[in-house]
Amino acid sequence: MKAPIKVYMTKKLIGVTPDTTVQEASKLMMEFEIGSLVVIDEKGNVIGFFTKSDILRRVVVPGLPYDTPVKDIMTKELITVNSNTPLGEVLRKMARHRIKHILIEEEGKIVGIFTLSDLLEASRRKLETAISTE
Amino acid sequence: MKAPIKVYMTKKLIGVTPDTTVQEASKLMMEFEIGSLVVIDEKGNVIGFFTKSDILRRVVVPGLPYDTPVKDIMTKELITVNSNTPLGEVLRKMARHRIKHILIEEEGKIVGIFTLSDLLEASRRKLETAISTE
Repeated sequence: MKAPIKVYMTKKLIGVTPDTTVQEASKLMMEFEIGSLVVIDEKGNVIGFFTKSDILRRVVVPGLPYDTPVKDIMTKELITVNSNTPLGEVLRKMARHRIKHILIEEEGKIVGIFTLSDLLEASRRKLETAISTE
Repeated sequence: MKAPIKVYMTKKLIGVTPDTTVQEASKLMMEFEIGSLVVIDEKGNVIGFFTKSDILRRVVVPGLPYDTPVKDIMTKELITVNSNTPLGEVLRKMARHRIKHILIEEEGKIVGIFTLSDLLEASRRKLETAISTE
């Protein structure tokens, strides 16, 4: 619980451009089995973030068309933690904000993401270690 | 990790009828901040299950209308574990099947659900206990 989050995070962040449609974004999410995507401008900066819930809440529920661009539904205020933050502190922050994905930054730059699937993997690995040392 | 899953599961399962539309179901999911719903027949039996991913994969990606009934997109083969199964074993099963929600049964009846959000809560609680006994 005290190890830094960079040990557990996923470095492979998948990004889309602001004009990608919600339908294309959904396809990408299903293809890579991920629950969120970052939105990247032409300079390579992360300018937004969205999850499967954002697609349901902001597209399916109000009945917007499937070709709505992701820039219309993305969250611009990114919730981030530094890559040296201990896992426990990150979990508390996620629980407090009720989020399942959190972006990891180093010197102001987004370098990875930590999700509840990574927590599952970390818990499972810890379990295997516990069993093998019993 | 050895405690039975019933300690960690959520008992409040939210069910919808087979003819509920995907749009109504999405609204419910957002209202209750949940990632899955069970589908219940007129006798109260659980006949299906679906997640936010199923809505993206089976409705948004192929471009089906938002009023598609949930019976058309639900999964009929339910993945379940008995309520006495140890947490560790449940986590391994979830990782193996790459799922974020698993239904909990007792004597063949669905009695609850365990999700990665429950894992977050369990990990967070364990952390608080560890800090308070330091």
